[in-house]
Amino acid sequence: MYDGIIQDLIDEFGRLPGIGPKSAQRIAFHILQTESFDVARLAQLLTEIREKVRFCEVCGNVAEEAQCSICRDPRRSPTTICVVEEAKDVVAIERTREFRGLYHVLGGAISPIDGIGPDDLRIAQLLSRLGDGTVTEVIIATDPNLEGEATATYLTRLLVQPNLTVSRLASGLPVGGDLEYADEVTLGRAFEGRRTVER
Amino acid sequence: MYDGIIQDLIDEFGRLPGIGPKSAQRIAFHILQTESFDVARLAQLLTEIREKVRFCEVCGNVAEEAQCSICRDPRRSPTTICVVEEAKDVVAIERTREFRGLYHVLGGAISPIDGIGPDDLRIAQLLSRLGDGTVTEVIIATDPNLEGEATATYLTRLLVQPNLTVSRLASGLPVGGDLEYADEVTLGRAFEGRRTVER
Repeated sequence: MYDGIIQDLIDEFGRLPGIGPKSAQRIAFHILQTESFDVARLAQLLTEIREKVRFCEVCGNVAEEAQCSICRDPRRSPTTICVVEEAKDVVAIERTREFRGLYHVLGGAISPIDGIGPDDLRIAQLLSRLGDGTVTEVIIATDPNLEGEATATYLTRLLVQPNLTVSRLASGLPVGGDLEYADEVTLGRAFEGRRTVER
Repeated sequence: MYDGIIQDLIDEFGRLPGIGPKSAQRIAFHILQTESFDVARLAQLLTEIREKVRFCEVCGNVAEEAQCSICRDPRRSPTTICVVEEAKDVVAIERTREFRGLYHVLGGAISPIDGIGPDDLRIAQLLSRLGDGTVTEVIIATDPNLEGEATATYLTRLLVQPNLTVSRLASGLPVGGDLEYADEVTLGRAFEGRRTVER
């Protein structure tokens, strides 16, 4: 609908996830008309992002060096590895400040429908990290959906080793949620995982 | 939360309209991980957009030459000018294929709360286009909100000229809408603008 380059920019933004044609148009005009928006900076970051960012050779997290900042941190406990699907999950867990061990990013979850099998994930790298016996616990923190559960089950069966505990994150009612509106699977898990109150 | 450049890119995307922190993160990772996404092309478009795109010297629409494609089109009737707030509105009206005249883009609407007065809009340029008497009708197509109505009223009072008709787009029930859910102002306008059915 627009002349040349504006339409090209709208189309290109429209290819990004979660941006429809209307949003793409709004963004293109914002960039065109807002003097204060540093368009050169965004262009430069886009040019540099794929060159500069690589994936940690140990855990698969995003990194700007050979190893990510977590793997390089000597204060992190090397005896526990938390297995997640994506680098985004590392950030979510780090935000809780509950976990002081290391991570392992699988790069997705087993999903036959999308053609993703165990060989497409960084599972071999995880096994090699467990080889020397330093790690005593693997916490499986895949997403609580079909693909994440399948991956967790697969890993649980695979990681049978002496002196290695495998755990999974608790399922249950979300804090601040409403019992009445919880789905039956979540509520079932909350019953299953109930704890005796200390008195 | 992320190392260096990824966080920079997330922050930069988060500055765009309609993109929150979660979407910005999703977009940054999409760009990072999707091989098929042509990141160089987006970067190049961003670099070129402000250089290449200018505003039509006649109507203020977006253009890649001194005049926009509509002003340059000899098939468009020069006797009617449709006044809109933004270049986006031109595209919306063009999509209807109802209008074959020319446009005038004001560059916004009168809004005292945002400090936008008549002098901040391209109103002087509109008056100079009406100078030679070619234009016989001005259709005011500002947004049907407070600012758009104020701008329309201002223009209606200003454009008192012999042999010049000033009209406004009809207000009424949106096609495909439900009378029951129409707000009272819209419904009131629909009554006001009712038409006698031809029999």
